[in-house]
Amino acid sequence: MWRVEEADLEALALGAGVLGAGGGGNPYYLFLTVRELLRAGRALQVMAVEELPADACVVDCFGMGAPTVSYEKPCQGEELLRALRALEHHLGRRATAVIGGEIGGGNAFSPLLLGAQAGLPVVDGDGMGRALPELQMLSFLIYGRPPAPAVLADDKGNVVLLTALRDVSWLEPLARDVTVRMGGTAEVVSCPMGREEVRATCLPGSISRARALGLAMLEARRTGTSAVEAARQAAGGVCLFIGKVVDVERRTRAGFALGRMVLEGLGQEAGSRMEIEFQNENLVARRDGVIACTVPDLICVLDSEDGEPLSTEVLRYGLRASVLGLPAPSQLTTPRALQVVGPRAFGYALDYQPLLAGFGAAQR
Amino acid sequence: MWRVEEADLEALALGAGVLGAGGGGNPYYLFLTVRELLRAGRALQVMAVEELPADACVVDCFGMGAPTVSYEKPCQGEELLRALRALEHHLGRRATAVIGGEIGGGNAFSPLLLGAQAGLPVVDGDGMGRALPELQMLSFLIYGRPPAPAVLADDKGNVVLLTALRDVSWLEPLARDVTVRMGGTAEVVSCPMGREEVRATCLPGSISRARALGLAMLEARRTGTSAVEAARQAAGGVCLFIGKVVDVERRTRAGFALGRMVLEGLGQEAGSRMEIEFQNENLVARRDGVIACTVPDLICVLDSEDGEPLSTEVLRYGLRASVLGLPAPSQLTTPRALQVVGPRAFGYALDYQPLLAGFGAAQR
Repeated sequence: MWRVEEADLEALALGAGVLGAGGGGNPYYLFLTVRELLRAGRALQVMAVEELPADACVVDCFGMGAPTVSYEKPCQGEELLRALRALEHHLGRRATAVIGGEIGGGNAFSPLLLGAQAGLPVVDGDGMGRALPELQMLSFLIYGRPPAPAVLADDKGNVVLLTALRDVSWLEPLARDVTVRMGGTAEVVSCPMGREEVRATCLPGSISRARALGLAMLEARRTGTSAVEAARQAAGGVCLFIGKVVDVERRTRAGFALGRMVLEGLGQEAGSRMEIEFQNENLVARRDGVIACTVPDLICVLDSEDGEPLSTEVLRYGLRASVLGLPAPSQLTTPRALQVVGPRAFGYALDYQPLLAGFGAAQR
Repeated sequence: MWRVEEADLEALALGAGVLGAGGGGNPYYLFLTVRELLRAGRALQVMAVEELPADACVVDCFGMGAPTVSYEKPCQGEELLRALRALEHHLGRRATAVIGGEIGGGNAFSPLLLGAQAGLPVVDGDGMGRALPELQMLSFLIYGRPPAPAVLADDKGNVVLLTALRDVSWLEPLARDVTVRMGGTAEVVSCPMGREEVRATCLPGSISRARALGLAMLEARRTGTSAVEAARQAAGGVCLFIGKVVDVERRTRAGFALGRMVLEGLGQEAGSRMEIEFQNENLVARRDGVIACTVPDLICVLDSEDGEPLSTEVLRYGLRASVLGLPAPSQLTTPRALQVVGPRAFGYALDYQPLLAGFGAAQR
């Protein structure tokens, strides 16, 4: 159990930005909101999965929607709390802890915000170990938790509770339609779990890992060394490309930010191109037409200068960028998980090859 | 209080079909389902609003979606019961009676089905006195009941509860999106009310009136007189046109059946044309380009031969049809109600003129 201090938030924002792999939503508003709550004296504890009591009632929480929208439409602030209260009313009991749905991007702050508002500890773990675009990709659901109940709340005061779902395949389309109608983003509280269910399905240690990643990058900035290289080392990844953004196509459709970017090589990479396709998050990177890295491994585009994560919303022509490939958490690369988060789940006629053993390694 | 017998169902189906004004959904499956429940010994009581006990908890119920879909996709059968149980769970108490959202078309049978399944009496009243296409057009909502909670259930087992809505304007779009995703139709249970709230907001006597209308038509058929004329007399309306369907345009878009039909006059009407536009229900009838009748008055297209109601789904070239205009219930023609159900609410640049005093009377 450790207490979140203001300094942790900056490191977490940076580390979670990297783990967002291009998505996860804008962290800035949530970062500011949580910082204000800490400054106002709210205590916020992060608890290891092992520290959960036997009678714990843990709920997950995250923001849903196109990240592009999250940059333009800030939260009202109490969406997660309204969703939590609606879920508690439905369950007939109070939650005792919260866990993040995804550690990547702004969603790293969802459990911190809700924990601070509701006075609940935050479990050091999440349901993705990165950011991923669709709800069935939560590890809680991949490993067998039921998809209902789930609550969506918006900035206007609307609250929608999915009380029963035929199976997990109905969660994403129903929740996505509601999210689009709510204005393109919604806050979700779902997956009530006991301690054993959290243990069996979550990705433990995510918050600590994101914070450590961010701290390594901040330290590199402070000492004038490469923050990109610090991130690569801290996350155990490989550098896939160094170049300049020369093309970005992006559209918001059916509640997602869809598109592709092209980078032209600089320095040793001159003459090469990297193309990256994304659905909220970066999915597939090709170097001169050859696959270099695929989901669920993380394709992270960072500013070459200071390592700042470049999410798919802020990409623009001329940015100097380094592309890191980071290995997926082991829970996302089992045969069961790859059916849900592997390249084929996104429509690619590709089998997943681990970054460090497959495409990426062959090219480095 | 009266007990529903099998013979009542046939009369009710016919009368409710007329009051559907082109919409309200397909009554046939629900008619069969309720008839089977009665044959299996389920008792079903209809209770006047005045007979409700002081501690009553009444919920409304109806099917939502494009009527065209209701002709192709029958209900699984227990959608309304699942929705009721979800609403009761949310409320923390059992309902003691049900009331129909709309008496028109198949929706006349929704409260009978739910009442028979749940063992609850059905209030003799409804929320429209006819059929209307959008949820905010329920008299309960027009006259001040809150739009949440409302539950939607589908044939697959999905149940969605709208627990909080910013205002009534959010009910229809959110519920419509969910309905479309559920496959184009959904069953709804909503508007929990006490006795005084039912009294203050419902249209009383709807079931008795629909049954009496159907009985008058059946009697005319039995004695070889005109069922169309019997309907006109029983409902106190006017005959707007007698002709033949020569054109039908119909499309299913955004969860609605939208379109128009054209009739060419026969007999005394030869040389004239009537055009009727619809959104699930018939909205505006023009005779040779001149407005003859508008919503909320009822524009009812009946088979000239036997008075069978011709809903917008079954219209086709060549049908001999009589168009009746029936006066709207008084609760739908107050200034407050006309803002929600008058011609302007459907995008027409027209003020409502009562059928018997306005356009229709001038032309007869």
